[in-house]
Amino acid sequence: MEYYSTPIAKLIESFSKLPGVGRKTAQRLAFHVISMNIEDVKDLSESIYKAKQSVRYCTKCCNLTDKDVCNICSDNKRNPQTICVVQDPRDVVAMERTREFKGVYHVLHGAISPLEGVGPEQIKIKELLIRVKDNDIEEIILATNPNIEGEATAMYISKILKPIGIKVTRIAHGIPIGGDLEYTDEITLTKALEGRREV
Amino acid sequence: MEYYSTPIAKLIESFSKLPGVGRKTAQRLAFHVISMNIEDVKDLSESIYKAKQSVRYCTKCCNLTDKDVCNICSDNKRNPQTICVVQDPRDVVAMERTREFKGVYHVLHGAISPLEGVGPEQIKIKELLIRVKDNDIEEIILATNPNIEGEATAMYISKILKPIGIKVTRIAHGIPIGGDLEYTDEITLTKALEGRREV
Repeated sequence: MEYYSTPIAKLIESFSKLPGVGRKTAQRLAFHVISMNIEDVKDLSESIYKAKQSVRYCTKCCNLTDKDVCNICSDNKRNPQTICVVQDPRDVVAMERTREFKGVYHVLHGAISPLEGVGPEQIKIKELLIRVKDNDIEEIILATNPNIEGEATAMYISKILKPIGIKVTRIAHGIPIGGDLEYTDEITLTKALEGRREV
Repeated sequence: MEYYSTPIAKLIESFSKLPGVGRKTAQRLAFHVISMNIEDVKDLSESIYKAKQSVRYCTKCCNLTDKDVCNICSDNKRNPQTICVVQDPRDVVAMERTREFKGVYHVLHGAISPLEGVGPEQIKIKELLIRVKDNDIEEIILATNPNIEGEATAMYISKILKPIGIKVTRIAHGIPIGGDLEYTDEITLTKALEGRREV
């Protein structure tokens, strides 16, 4: 570290705190920044700070937005009576890419995980329940991840909402398109069998 | 891209311009920035801009520094009569890690490469020649990379300096320590043979 001049050493240190960025990558990034032109550097620097500063949770769905209510929640063409519950803002993006879902979302920002000390209070379940209570909801689609934490979260939410008489569904688990039966694990195959439909 | 709120989309775009950062990594980095605390984000943002803004070339050796003359050139304990010529500021760091070299450096910021349109005028050779002329130099160690461009650059510099009567040396090429004769390529092995020394 002492080999670098102070601002470079500082920059390398800052970069190496990012996920998936080791010392070597941080060095390469830092030297790249030095070689960029000043406008691009200013742009990068500002967009980092601005993103953090301006982005907050949508007051309706808890998705990330720079407004009070996110673009999806404020879109009149979408059906606010169907809520797709996801763990993460990135999952919203993944769902949106399908161009199939016309309802709105609710972002939990995590999943129930007792091992990591995450209970129902630590994620945005309370906000979902308030939303369900205050609005006329047709269907809640649980699109949490198909792993232990995601399943536990889906189970938890459905156990609260079903007694109130709300239609709660879970996205299907099965063999992904382009997948290969031979290389599919037993659990997925079991789920695929369970979820079979008449053709 | 339309799925993200504007500041996030902007940040992802900025990140994806960095070397080795694709769209997926840029997304992960952007979401990480959002989840960092504001002080750390400010710190990252500022260190990027400050590094670019404050770092310039050392007026003596063309290494990157935030002062007029870099730490190495201004260090009295180092011998300014031995100059190690390298292609890149990162090479200075690599050399410094050996803790063996007590001279000073000259950073060329590139190597002669006709294919990429880089001639002797595009890199800091002129500055080196001025330095050699103005100072009493004992030895020039050519430590450019052992590839076509690096060799061409070393050759070019030595052809200019040797006639003036300056001792010009080239770092040794051979089998790296921990390497294996069996897996060493022919060119390296040839170089290792050529460079053999009496024991």
